[in-house]
Amino acid sequence: MQTLSETRCFGRTQHVLTHRSEATGTDMTFGLYLPPGAAAAAPVPLLWYLSGLTCTHENAMVKAGAQAHAAEAGIALCFPDTSPRGEGVADDDAYDLGQGAGFYVDATEAPWSPHFRMKSYLAGELPALLARHFPVDPGRQGITGHSMGGHGALTLAMTDPGRFRSVSAFSPICNPTESDWGRKQLTAYLGPDTERWAEADATRLMEATGLDIPLLLDTGTADQFWDLLGTEAFAAACARARAPAQIRLQPGYDHSYFFVSTFIADHIAFHAEALWS
Amino acid sequence: MQTLSETRCFGRTQHVLTHRSEATGTDMTFGLYLPPGAAAAAPVPLLWYLSGLTCTHENAMVKAGAQAHAAEAGIALCFPDTSPRGEGVADDDAYDLGQGAGFYVDATEAPWSPHFRMKSYLAGELPALLARHFPVDPGRQGITGHSMGGHGALTLAMTDPGRFRSVSAFSPICNPTESDWGRKQLTAYLGPDTERWAEADATRLMEATGLDIPLLLDTGTADQFWDLLGTEAFAAACARARAPAQIRLQPGYDHSYFFVSTFIADHIAFHAEALWS
Repeated sequence: MQTLSETRCFGRTQHVLTHRSEATGTDMTFGLYLPPGAAAAAPVPLLWYLSGLTCTHENAMVKAGAQAHAAEAGIALCFPDTSPRGEGVADDDAYDLGQGAGFYVDATEAPWSPHFRMKSYLAGELPALLARHFPVDPGRQGITGHSMGGHGALTLAMTDPGRFRSVSAFSPICNPTESDWGRKQLTAYLGPDTERWAEADATRLMEATGLDIPLLLDTGTADQFWDLLGTEAFAAACARARAPAQIRLQPGYDHSYFFVSTFIADHIAFHAEALWS
Repeated sequence: MQTLSETRCFGRTQHVLTHRSEATGTDMTFGLYLPPGAAAAAPVPLLWYLSGLTCTHENAMVKAGAQAHAAEAGIALCFPDTSPRGEGVADDDAYDLGQGAGFYVDATEAPWSPHFRMKSYLAGELPALLARHFPVDPGRQGITGHSMGGHGALTLAMTDPGRFRSVSAFSPICNPTESDWGRKQLTAYLGPDTERWAEADATRLMEATGLDIPLLLDTGTADQFWDLLGTEAFAAACARARAPAQIRLQPGYDHSYFFVSTFIADHIAFHAEALWS
Protein backbone atom coordinates (compact mmCIF):
# COMPACT_ATOMS: atom_id res chain seq x y z
CA MET A 1 0.00 0.00 0.00
CA GLN A 2 1.30 3.41 -0.97
CA THR A 3 0.34 6.87 0.24
CA LEU A 4 -0.49 9.27 -2.60
CA SER A 5 -1.30 12.23 -0.37
CA GLU A 6 -2.00 13.21 3.23
CA THR A 7 -3.82 16.48 3.78
CA ARG A 8 -4.93 18.11 6.98
CA CYS A 9 -8.68 18.73 7.03
CA PHE A 10 -10.87 19.68 10.00
CA GLY A 11 -8.12 18.81 12.44
CA ARG A 12 -7.32 15.36 11.12
CA THR A 13 -5.94 13.75 7.97
CA GLN A 14 -7.46 13.02 4.58
CA HIS A 15 -5.37 10.17 3.19
CA VAL A 16 -5.33 9.00 -0.41
CA LEU A 17 -3.88 5.52 -0.75
CA THR A 18 -3.33 3.02 -3.50
CA HIS A 19 -2.79 -0.73 -3.30
CA ARG A 20 -2.71 -3.83 -5.46
CA SER A 21 -6.10 -5.52 -5.26
CA GLU A 22 -6.38 -9.29 -5.49
CA ALA A 23 -10.12 -9.02 -6.09
CA THR A 24 -9.84 -6.80 -9.16
CA GLY A 25 -6.31 -7.67 -10.26
CA THR A 26 -5.55 -3.96 -10.58
CA ASP A 27 -4.20 -1.11 -8.52
CA MET A 28 -7.05 0.50 -6.59
CA THR A 29 -7.06 3.99 -5.10
CA PHE A 30 -9.22 5.12 -2.19
CA GLY A 31 -9.62 8.03 0.21
CA LEU A 32 -9.58 7.47 3.97
CA TYR A 33 -10.43 10.20 6.46
CA LEU A 34 -9.49 9.56 10.06
CA PRO A 35 -11.10 11.87 12.60
CA PRO A 36 -9.66 13.13 15.88
CA GLY A 37 -9.32 10.22 18.26
CA ALA A 38 -8.39 7.62 15.65
CA ALA A 39 -4.73 8.01 16.50
CA ALA A 40 -5.44 6.86 20.04
CA ALA A 41 -5.68 3.23 21.10
CA ALA A 42 -9.41 2.76 20.59
CA PRO A 43 -10.45 2.25 16.96
CA VAL A 44 -13.26 4.41 15.62
CA PRO A 45 -16.41 3.56 13.63
CA LEU A 46 -16.12 3.53 9.86
CA LEU A 47 -18.59 4.93 7.35
CA TRP A 48 -18.25 3.87 3.71
CA TYR A 49 -19.24 6.29 0.96
CA LEU A 50 -19.80 4.70 -2.46
CA SER A 51 -19.86 7.09 -5.41
CA GLY A 52 -21.90 7.27 -8.57
CA LEU A 53 -21.39 6.91 -12.30
CA THR A 54 -18.23 8.56 -13.73
CA CYS A 55 -16.83 9.23 -10.25
CA THR A 56 -13.49 8.18 -8.80
CA HIS A 57 -12.51 8.04 -5.11
CA GLU A 58 -12.12 11.81 -5.35
CA ASN A 59 -15.55 13.31 -6.09
CA ALA A 60 -17.24 12.86 -2.74
CA MET A 61 -13.98 13.46 -0.91
CA VAL A 62 -13.76 17.00 -2.31
CA LYS A 63 -17.42 17.90 -2.90
CA ALA A 64 -19.69 16.29 -0.29
CA GLY A 65 -18.43 18.24 2.72
CA ALA A 66 -18.45 15.06 4.79
CA GLN A 67 -15.23 15.55 6.73
CA ALA A 68 -16.52 18.39 8.93
CA HIS A 69 -19.32 16.21 10.25
CA ALA A 70 -17.24 13.02 10.47
CA ALA A 71 -14.66 14.87 12.56
CA GLU A 72 -17.38 16.12 14.88
CA ALA A 73 -18.98 12.67 15.13
CA GLY A 74 -15.64 10.93 15.62
CA ILE A 75 -16.05 8.49 12.74
CA ALA A 76 -13.74 7.53 9.87
CA LEU A 77 -14.76 7.76 6.21
CA CYS A 78 -13.67 5.56 3.33
CA PHE A 79 -14.17 6.70 -0.29
CA PRO A 80 -13.47 3.77 -2.66
CA ASP A 81 -13.24 4.03 -6.42
CA THR A 82 -16.25 3.03 -8.55
CA SER A 83 -14.52 0.41 -10.72
CA PRO A 84 -11.18 -1.11 -11.65
CA ARG A 85 -9.19 1.03 -14.05
CA GLY A 86 -6.12 1.01 -16.23
CA GLU A 87 -4.67 -0.60 -19.30
CA GLY A 88 -5.85 -4.12 -19.90
CA VAL A 89 -9.14 -3.41 -18.08
CA ALA A 90 -12.22 -3.63 -20.29
CA ASP A 91 -14.12 -0.41 -20.97
CA ASP A 92 -16.98 0.98 -23.01
CA ASP A 93 -17.49 4.31 -24.76
CA ALA A 94 -20.68 4.94 -22.77
CA TYR A 95 -20.30 6.86 -19.49
CA ASP A 96 -22.50 4.33 -17.72
CA LEU A 97 -20.72 1.07 -18.50
CA GLY A 98 -17.19 -0.12 -17.77
CA GLN A 99 -14.58 2.03 -16.04
CA GLY A 100 -16.28 4.44 -13.64
CA ALA A 101 -19.45 2.33 -13.69
CA GLY A 102 -18.73 -0.92 -11.85
CA PHE A 103 -22.22 -1.11 -10.30
CA TYR A 104 -20.73 -2.85 -7.23
CA VAL A 105 -21.20 -6.38 -8.57
CA ASP A 106 -18.85 -9.28 -9.41
CA ALA A 107 -19.05 -9.63 -13.18
CA THR A 108 -19.45 -13.14 -14.54
CA GLU A 109 -19.44 -12.26 -18.23
CA ALA A 110 -16.71 -11.44 -20.75
CA PRO A 111 -15.00 -9.05 -21.16
CA TRP A 112 -15.77 -7.78 -17.64
CA SER A 113 -15.27 -10.81 -15.39
CA PRO A 114 -11.46 -10.68 -14.99
CA HIS A 115 -11.41 -7.29 -13.23
CA PHE A 116 -14.93 -6.01 -12.50
CA ARG A 117 -15.22 -7.59 -9.06
CA MET A 118 -16.22 -4.56 -6.98
CA LYS A 119 -18.48 -6.56 -4.71
CA SER A 120 -15.69 -8.89 -3.60
CA TYR A 121 -13.40 -5.91 -3.29
CA LEU A 122 -15.75 -4.02 -0.99
CA ALA A 123 -17.26 -6.96 0.86
CA GLY A 124 -13.97 -8.63 1.69
CA GLU A 125 -10.65 -7.26 0.62
CA LEU A 126 -10.76 -3.54 1.35
CA PRO A 127 -12.42 -3.73 4.79
CA ALA A 128 -9.85 -6.37 5.82
CA LEU A 129 -7.03 -4.16 4.59
CA LEU A 130 -8.34 -1.16 6.52
CA ALA A 131 -8.80 -3.16 9.71
CA ARG A 132 -5.21 -4.40 9.47
CA HIS A 133 -3.58 -1.04 8.90
CA PHE A 134 -5.78 1.65 10.47
CA PRO A 135 -7.53 2.22 13.80
CA VAL A 136 -11.03 1.51 12.48
CA ASP A 137 -13.47 -0.84 14.20
CA PRO A 138 -14.84 -3.59 11.91
CA GLY A 139 -17.64 -4.12 14.42
CA ARG A 140 -18.90 -0.58 13.82
CA GLN A 141 -19.44 -0.06 10.10
CA GLY A 142 -22.07 1.97 8.28
CA ILE A 143 -22.48 2.50 4.55
CA THR A 144 -23.87 5.25 2.35
CA GLY A 145 -23.58 6.30 -1.27
CA HIS A 146 -24.92 8.44 -4.07
CA SER A 147 -26.83 7.30 -7.18
CA MET A 148 -25.04 4.13 -8.42
CA GLY A 149 -23.23 4.28 -5.07
CA GLY A 150 -26.57 4.38 -3.25
CA HIS A 151 -27.45 1.21 -5.14
CA GLY A 152 -24.13 -0.21 -3.97
CA ALA A 153 -24.75 0.78 -0.36
CA LEU A 154 -28.25 -0.72 -0.27
CA THR A 155 -27.31 -3.97 -1.99
CA LEU A 156 -24.10 -4.48 -0.01
CA ALA A 157 -25.99 -3.89 3.23
CA MET A 158 -28.74 -6.32 2.31
CA THR A 159 -26.48 -9.09 0.98
CA ASP A 160 -24.03 -8.99 3.89
CA PRO A 161 -26.27 -9.08 6.97
CA GLY A 162 -24.49 -8.39 10.23
CA ARG A 163 -21.70 -6.35 8.72
CA PHE A 164 -23.29 -2.90 8.93
CA ARG A 165 -25.15 -1.21 11.75
CA SER A 166 -26.74 1.43 9.49
CA VAL A 167 -27.26 2.15 5.81
CA SER A 168 -28.22 5.30 3.95
CA ALA A 169 -28.33 6.58 0.41
CA PHE A 170 -28.60 9.78 -1.63
CA SER A 171 -30.73 9.50 -4.79
CA PRO A 172 -29.98 5.78 -5.10
CA ILE A 173 -30.70 3.58 -8.08
CA CYS A 174 -33.22 1.37 -6.27
CA ASN A 175 -34.62 -0.98 -8.86
CA PRO A 176 -32.07 -1.46 -11.64
CA THR A 177 -33.87 -4.50 -13.04
CA GLU A 178 -36.54 -2.07 -14.29
CA SER A 179 -34.27 0.84 -15.31
CA ASP A 180 -32.00 1.92 -18.13
CA TRP A 181 -29.54 2.50 -15.30
CA GLY A 182 -29.39 -1.22 -14.64
CA ARG A 183 -30.65 -3.44 -17.42
CA LYS A 184 -27.77 -2.65 -19.76
CA GLN A 185 -25.14 -2.93 -17.06
CA LEU A 186 -26.47 -6.03 -15.32
CA THR A 187 -26.87 -7.75 -18.70
CA ALA A 188 -23.27 -6.91 -19.50
CA TYR A 189 -21.81 -7.86 -16.13
CA LEU A 190 -24.10 -10.71 -15.03
CA GLY A 191 -25.68 -11.96 -18.27
CA PRO A 192 -29.23 -11.71 -19.58
CA ASP A 193 -30.93 -13.99 -17.05
CA THR A 194 -32.67 -11.53 -14.74
CA GLU A 195 -32.87 -14.15 -11.99
CA ARG A 196 -29.14 -13.63 -11.56
CA TRP A 197 -29.68 -9.92 -10.91
CA ALA A 198 -31.70 -10.43 -7.73
CA GLU A 199 -28.84 -9.65 -5.35
CA ALA A 200 -27.99 -6.52 -7.36
CA ASP A 201 -31.44 -4.93 -6.99
CA ALA A 202 -32.34 -3.22 -3.71
CA THR A 203 -36.06 -3.44 -4.32
CA ARG A 204 -35.94 -7.17 -5.02
CA LEU A 205 -33.69 -7.70 -2.00
CA MET A 206 -36.07 -5.74 0.21
CA GLU A 207 -38.97 -7.85 -1.07
CA ALA A 208 -37.07 -11.09 -0.56
CA THR A 209 -35.35 -10.56 2.76
CA GLY A 210 -36.27 -7.19 4.28
CA LEU A 211 -33.79 -5.23 6.35
CA ASP A 212 -33.18 -5.16 10.09
CA ILE A 213 -30.84 -2.15 10.39
CA PRO A 214 -31.90 1.50 10.20
CA LEU A 215 -32.10 2.98 6.70
CA LEU A 216 -32.16 6.66 5.68
CA LEU A 217 -32.82 7.58 2.06
CA ASP A 218 -32.97 11.09 0.57
CA THR A 219 -33.98 11.80 -3.02
CA GLY A 220 -34.74 15.21 -4.51
CA THR A 221 -38.13 15.79 -6.10
CA ALA A 222 -36.42 17.72 -8.92
CA ASP A 223 -33.95 14.91 -9.59
CA GLN A 224 -33.27 15.03 -13.34
CA PHE A 225 -32.83 11.23 -13.31
CA TRP A 226 -35.96 10.49 -11.26
CA ASP A 227 -37.38 8.04 -13.81
CA LEU A 228 -34.21 5.96 -13.66
CA LEU A 229 -34.09 5.58 -9.87
CA GLY A 230 -37.13 3.46 -9.03
CA THR A 231 -37.79 5.28 -5.77
CA GLU A 232 -41.50 4.43 -5.87
CA ALA A 233 -40.88 0.69 -6.09
CA PHE A 234 -38.32 0.75 -3.31
CA ALA A 235 -40.47 2.88 -1.01
CA ALA A 236 -43.35 0.47 -1.52
CA ALA A 237 -41.08 -2.50 -0.83
CA CYS A 238 -39.82 -0.88 2.39
CA ALA A 239 -43.39 -0.32 3.53
CA ARG A 240 -44.43 -3.87 2.68
CA ALA A 241 -41.41 -5.21 4.58
CA ARG A 242 -42.07 -2.85 7.50
CA ALA A 243 -38.35 -2.08 7.39
CA PRO A 244 -36.92 0.51 9.83
CA ALA A 245 -36.64 2.96 6.95
CA GLN A 246 -36.91 6.73 6.54
CA ILE A 247 -37.62 7.60 2.91
CA ARG A 248 -37.38 11.38 2.48
CA LEU A 249 -38.33 13.21 -0.71
CA GLN A 250 -36.64 16.60 -0.60
CA PRO A 251 -38.58 19.35 -2.40
CA GLY A 252 -36.76 21.05 -5.26
CA TYR A 253 -33.41 19.25 -4.97
CA ASP A 254 -31.75 17.59 -7.96
CA HIS A 255 -29.18 14.79 -8.41
CA SER A 256 -26.05 16.90 -7.86
CA TYR A 257 -23.50 17.20 -5.09
CA PHE A 258 -25.27 20.41 -4.07
CA PHE A 259 -27.99 18.03 -2.92
CA VAL A 260 -25.61 15.58 -1.25
CA SER A 261 -23.77 18.36 0.58
CA THR A 262 -27.05 19.80 1.84
CA PHE A 263 -28.03 16.57 3.61
CA ILE A 264 -24.66 14.96 4.41
CA ALA A 265 -24.82 16.31 7.98
CA ASP A 266 -28.11 14.46 8.54
CA HIS A 267 -26.69 11.23 7.16
CA ILE A 268 -23.53 11.34 9.22
CA ALA A 269 -25.53 12.09 12.37
CA PHE A 270 -27.83 9.18 11.51
CA HIS A 271 -24.89 6.78 11.12
CA ALA A 272 -23.06 8.16 14.16
CA GLU A 273 -26.07 7.42 16.35
CA ALA A 274 -26.12 3.80 15.17
CA LEU A 275 -22.35 3.37 15.24
CA TRP A 276 -21.68 4.82 18.68
CA SER A 277 -24.63 3.14 20.44
CA MET B 1 -27.56 37.68 -18.94
CA GLN B 2 -28.30 34.00 -19.32
CA THR B 3 -28.90 31.32 -16.70
CA LEU B 4 -26.71 28.24 -17.18
CA SER B 5 -28.04 26.36 -14.16
CA GLU B 6 -30.09 26.75 -11.02
CA THR B 7 -29.59 24.15 -8.30
CA ARG B 8 -31.18 23.86 -4.90
CA CYS B 9 -28.59 23.83 -2.13
CA PHE B 10 -29.14 24.27 1.61
CA GLY B 11 -32.65 25.52 1.07
CA ARG B 12 -31.88 28.16 -1.54
CA THR B 13 -30.51 28.40 -5.05
CA GLN B 14 -27.03 28.16 -6.49
CA HIS B 15 -27.21 30.03 -9.79
CA VAL B 16 -24.64 29.90 -12.57
CA LEU B 17 -25.00 32.83 -14.94
CA THR B 18 -23.18 34.15 -17.97
CA HIS B 19 -23.20 37.64 -19.48
CA ARG B 20 -21.38 39.78 -21.99
CA SER B 21 -18.82 41.89 -20.14
CA GLU B 22 -17.95 45.36 -21.36
CA ALA B 23 -14.87 45.43 -19.15
CA THR B 24 -13.30 42.27 -20.60
CA GLY B 25 -14.99 42.24 -23.99
CA THR B 26 -15.83 38.56 -23.48
CA ASP B 27 -18.61 36.41 -22.08
CA MET B 28 -18.05 35.97 -18.34
CA THR B 29 -19.54 33.21 -16.17
CA PHE B 30 -20.10 33.45 -12.43
CA GLY B 31 -21.82 31.60 -9.59
CA LEU B 32 -24.32 33.39 -7.35
CA TYR B 33 -25.75 31.82 -4.21
CA LEU B 34 -28.78 33.49 -2.72
CA PRO B 35 -29.66 32.43 0.81
CA PRO B 36 -33.08 32.19 2.44
CA GLY B 37 -34.51 35.65 2.78
CA ALA B 38 -33.09 37.04 -0.44
CA ALA B 39 -36.37 36.50 -2.23
CA ALA B 40 -38.08 38.87 0.19
CA ALA B 41 -38.14 42.63 -0.17
CA ALA B 42 -35.01 43.38 1.84
CA PRO B 43 -31.73 42.76 -0.01
CA VAL B 44 -29.10 40.68 1.75
CA PRO B 45 -25.36 41.24 2.28
CA LEU B 46 -23.02 39.96 -0.40
CA LEU B 47 -19.72 38.15 0.10
CA TRP B 48 -17.37 37.88 -2.88
CA TYR B 49 -15.13 34.82 -3.20
CA LEU B 50 -12.19 35.21 -5.59
CA SER B 51 -10.49 32.01 -6.68
CA GLY B 52 -6.89 31.06 -7.30
CA LEU B 53 -4.70 30.06 -10.23
CA THR B 54 -6.23 27.60 -12.75
CA CYS B 55 -9.70 27.96 -11.17
CA THR B 56 -12.95 28.96 -12.83
CA HIS B 57 -16.14 30.20 -11.13
CA GLU B 58 -16.78 26.56 -10.26
CA ASN B 59 -14.01 25.40 -7.93
CA ALA B 60 -14.97 27.17 -4.74
CA MET B 61 -18.65 26.79 -5.54
CA VAL B 62 -18.35 22.99 -5.41
CA LYS B 63 -15.43 22.46 -3.02
CA ALA B 64 -15.33 25.15 -0.33
CA GLY B 65 -18.54 24.17 1.47
CA ALA B 66 -19.50 27.84 1.76
CA GLN B 67 -23.20 27.59 1.02
CA ALA B 68 -24.15 25.87 4.29
CA HIS B 69 -22.71 28.74 6.31
CA ALA B 70 -23.93 31.49 3.97
CA ALA B 71 -27.46 30.12 4.23
CA GLU B 72 -27.24 30.12 8.00
CA ALA B 73 -25.76 33.63 8.08
CA GLY B 74 -28.26 34.96 5.55
CA ILE B 75 -25.69 36.30 3.11
CA ALA B 76 -25.31 35.92 -0.64
CA LEU B 77 -22.12 34.60 -2.27
CA CYS B 78 -20.65 35.52 -5.64
CA PHE B 79 -18.01 33.32 -7.30
CA PRO B 80 -16.51 35.15 -10.32
CA ASP B 81 -14.17 33.59 -12.85
CA THR B 82 -10.41 34.23 -12.55
CA SER B 83 -9.84 35.70 -16.04
CA PRO B 84 -11.42 36.33 -19.40
CA ARG B 85 -11.54 33.24 -21.61
CA GLY B 86 -12.28 32.11 -25.10
CA GLU B 87 -11.05 32.36 -28.64
CA GLY B 88 -9.29 35.60 -29.42
CA VAL B 89 -8.25 36.01 -25.77
CA ALA B 90 -4.49 35.89 -25.23
CA ASP B 91 -3.10 32.94 -23.30
CA ASP B 92 0.17 31.36 -22.22
CA ASP B 93 1.26 27.75 -21.88
CA ALA B 94 2.14 28.28 -18.22
CA TYR B 95 -0.62 27.56 -15.69
CA ASP B 96 0.13 30.81 -13.89
CA LEU B 97 -0.20 33.33 -16.72
CA GLY B 98 -3.07 34.18 -19.03
CA GLN B 99 -6.43 32.42 -18.93
CA GLY B 100 -7.14 31.20 -15.40
CA ALA B 101 -4.53 33.60 -14.00
CA GLY B 102 -5.85 37.14 -14.38
CA PHE B 103 -4.35 38.32 -11.07
CA TYR B 104 -7.26 40.76 -10.64
CA VAL B 105 -5.54 43.67 -12.41
CA ASP B 106 -6.27 45.76 -15.52
CA ALA B 107 -3.53 44.85 -17.99
CA THR B 108 -1.86 47.72 -19.80
CA GLU B 109 0.53 45.63 -21.93
CA ALA B 110 0.13 43.65 -25.14
CA PRO B 111 -1.15 41.06 -25.77
CA TRP B 112 -3.14 41.16 -22.50
CA SER B 113 -4.61 44.67 -22.40
CA PRO B 114 -7.67 44.15 -24.66
CA HIS B 115 -9.35 41.58 -22.38
CA PHE B 116 -7.47 41.14 -19.09
CA ARG B 117 -9.38 43.81 -17.17
CA MET B 118 -10.47 41.83 -14.13
CA LYS B 119 -10.10 44.77 -11.77
CA SER B 120 -12.54 46.93 -13.72
CA TYR B 121 -14.83 43.94 -14.06
CA LEU B 122 -14.93 43.27 -10.31
CA ALA B 123 -14.68 46.85 -9.08
CA GLY B 124 -17.40 48.22 -11.31
CA GLU B 125 -19.26 46.13 -13.81
CA LEU B 126 -20.18 42.92 -11.99
CA PRO B 127 -21.29 44.50 -8.69
CA ALA B 128 -23.47 46.94 -10.63
CA LEU B 129 -24.99 44.08 -12.60
CA LEU B 130 -25.77 42.12 -9.43
CA ALA B 131 -27.30 45.13 -7.70
CA ARG B 132 -29.55 45.70 -10.72
CA HIS B 133 -30.81 42.15 -11.05
CA PHE B 134 -30.67 40.49 -7.63
CA PRO B 135 -31.72 41.32 -4.06
CA VAL B 136 -28.20 42.02 -2.81
CA ASP B 137 -27.29 45.12 -0.83
CA PRO B 138 -24.36 47.10 -2.34
CA GLY B 139 -23.95 48.82 1.02
CA ARG B 140 -23.11 45.51 2.68
CA GLN B 141 -20.29 43.84 0.78
CA GLY B 142 -17.43 41.71 2.05
CA ILE B 143 -14.68 40.01 0.07
CA THR B 144 -12.57 36.90 0.48
CA GLY B 145 -10.47 34.66 -1.73
CA HIS B 146 -7.90 31.90 -1.94
CA SER B 147 -4.27 32.19 -3.06
CA MET B 148 -4.30 34.48 -6.15
CA GLY B 149 -7.89 35.20 -5.11
CA GLY B 150 -6.69 36.20 -1.65
CA HIS B 151 -4.36 38.65 -3.38
CA GLY B 152 -7.37 39.88 -5.33
CA ALA B 153 -9.49 40.28 -2.20
CA LEU B 154 -6.81 42.18 -0.29
CA THR B 155 -5.88 44.50 -3.16
CA LEU B 156 -9.48 45.19 -4.20
CA ALA B 157 -10.38 46.00 -0.59
CA MET B 158 -7.43 48.35 -0.17
CA THR B 159 -7.80 50.15 -3.50
CA ASP B 160 -11.56 50.71 -3.22
CA PRO B 161 -12.00 52.14 0.29
CA GLY B 162 -15.58 52.36 1.47
CA ARG B 163 -16.87 49.56 -0.74
CA PHE B 164 -16.32 46.64 1.64
CA ARG B 165 -17.11 46.26 5.33
CA SER B 166 -14.79 43.28 5.82
CA VAL B 167 -12.02 41.42 4.01
CA SER B 168 -10.50 37.99 4.50
CA ALA B 169 -8.19 35.63 2.68
CA PHE B 170 -7.08 32.01 2.61
CA SER B 171 -3.35 31.49 1.89
CA PRO B 172 -3.18 34.74 -0.09
CA ILE B 173 -0.34 35.88 -2.29
CA CYS B 174 0.56 38.89 -0.17
CA ASN B 175 3.64 40.41 -1.72
CA PRO B 176 3.75 39.56 -5.43
CA THR B 177 6.42 42.17 -6.16
CA GLU B 178 8.85 39.86 -4.35
CA SER B 179 7.50 36.50 -5.56
CA ASP B 180 7.61 34.21 -8.58
CA TRP B 181 3.83 34.31 -8.17
CA GLY B 182 3.79 37.95 -9.11
CA ARG B 183 6.89 39.26 -10.83
CA LYS B 184 6.28 37.33 -14.04
CA GLN B 185 2.58 38.14 -14.14
CA LEU B 186 2.80 41.81 -13.15
CA THR B 187 5.61 42.32 -15.68
CA ALA B 188 3.43 40.75 -18.37
CA TYR B 189 0.22 42.58 -17.45
CA LEU B 190 1.53 45.93 -16.15
CA GLY B 191 5.02 46.25 -17.64
CA PRO B 192 8.47 46.04 -16.01
CA ASP B 193 8.30 49.27 -13.97
CA THR B 194 7.65 47.98 -10.45
CA GLU B 195 6.29 51.38 -9.39
CA ARG B 196 3.23 50.54 -11.46
CA TRP B 197 2.68 47.38 -9.42
CA ALA B 198 2.07 49.20 -6.13
CA GLU B 199 -1.73 48.86 -6.25
CA ALA B 200 -1.40 45.16 -7.08
CA ASP B 201 0.61 44.28 -3.99
CA ALA B 202 -1.18 43.92 -0.64
CA THR B 203 1.96 44.44 1.41
CA ARG B 204 2.85 47.67 -0.39
CA LEU B 205 -0.73 48.87 -0.12
CA MET B 206 -0.78 48.13 3.59
CA GLU B 207 2.46 50.06 4.00
CA ALA B 208 1.19 52.98 1.94
CA THR B 209 -2.38 53.37 3.15
CA GLY B 210 -3.19 50.88 5.91
CA LEU B 211 -6.65 49.41 6.26
CA ASP B 212 -9.62 50.49 8.31
CA ILE B 213 -11.94 47.48 7.97
CA PRO B 214 -11.54 44.16 9.80
CA LEU B 215 -9.23 41.64 8.12
CA LEU B 216 -9.00 37.88 8.76
CA LEU B 217 -6.19 35.90 7.13
CA ASP B 218 -5.56 32.14 7.44
CA THR B 219 -2.51 30.40 6.01
CA GLY B 220 -1.42 26.82 6.71
CA THR B 221 2.03 26.22 8.15
CA ALA B 222 2.44 23.24 5.80
CA ASP B 223 1.48 25.28 2.74
CA GLN B 224 3.51 23.83 -0.13
CA PHE B 225 3.70 27.31 -1.71
CA TRP B 226 4.67 29.12 1.50
CA ASP B 227 7.75 30.74 -0.04
CA LEU B 228 5.63 32.28 -2.79
CA LEU B 229 3.05 33.90 -0.51
CA GLY B 230 4.98 36.57 1.38
CA THR B 231 2.99 36.07 4.59
CA GLU B 232 5.87 37.36 6.73
CA ALA B 233 6.08 40.67 4.89
CA PHE B 234 2.33 41.20 5.00
CA ALA B 235 2.05 40.30 8.69
CA ALA B 236 4.82 42.77 9.48
CA ALA B 237 3.11 45.46 7.39
CA CYS B 238 -0.20 44.86 9.19
CA ALA B 239 1.53 45.22 12.54
CA ARG B 240 3.34 48.39 11.49
CA ALA B 241 0.06 49.86 10.23
CA ARG B 242 -1.77 48.74 13.39
CA ALA B 243 -4.49 47.44 11.07
CA PRO B 244 -7.53 45.67 12.59
CA ALA B 245 -6.11 42.37 11.35
CA GLN B 246 -6.14 38.77 12.53
CA ILE B 247 -3.30 36.81 10.92
CA ARG B 248 -3.70 33.13 11.79
CA LEU B 249 -1.11 30.47 10.92
CA GLN B 250 -2.88 27.12 11.00
CA PRO B 251 -0.62 24.23 12.07
CA GLY B 252 -0.25 21.42 9.55
CA TYR B 253 -2.62 22.71 6.86
CA ASP B 254 -1.58 23.02 3.22
CA HIS B 255 -2.76 25.12 0.25
CA SER B 256 -5.68 22.91 -0.80
CA TYR B 257 -9.44 23.21 -0.58
CA PHE B 258 -9.29 20.81 2.36
CA PHE B 259 -7.77 23.80 4.15
CA VAL B 260 -10.29 26.31 2.80
CA SER B 261 -13.24 24.09 3.70
CA THR B 262 -11.92 23.64 7.23
CA PHE B 263 -11.95 27.37 7.94
CA ILE B 264 -14.71 28.67 5.67
CA ALA B 265 -17.19 28.65 8.56
CA ASP B 266 -14.94 31.01 10.53
CA HIS B 267 -14.59 33.35 7.56
CA ILE B 268 -18.29 33.51 6.83
CA ALA B 269 -19.08 34.14 10.50
CA PHE B 270 -16.43 36.90 10.50
CA HIS B 271 -17.97 38.58 7.45
CA ALA B 272 -21.54 38.07 8.68
CA GLU B 273 -20.72 39.91 11.89
CA ALA B 274 -19.41 42.90 9.93
CA LEU B 275 -22.12 42.78 7.27
CA TRP B 276 -25.12 42.50 9.58
CA SER B 277 -23.94 45.07 12.14
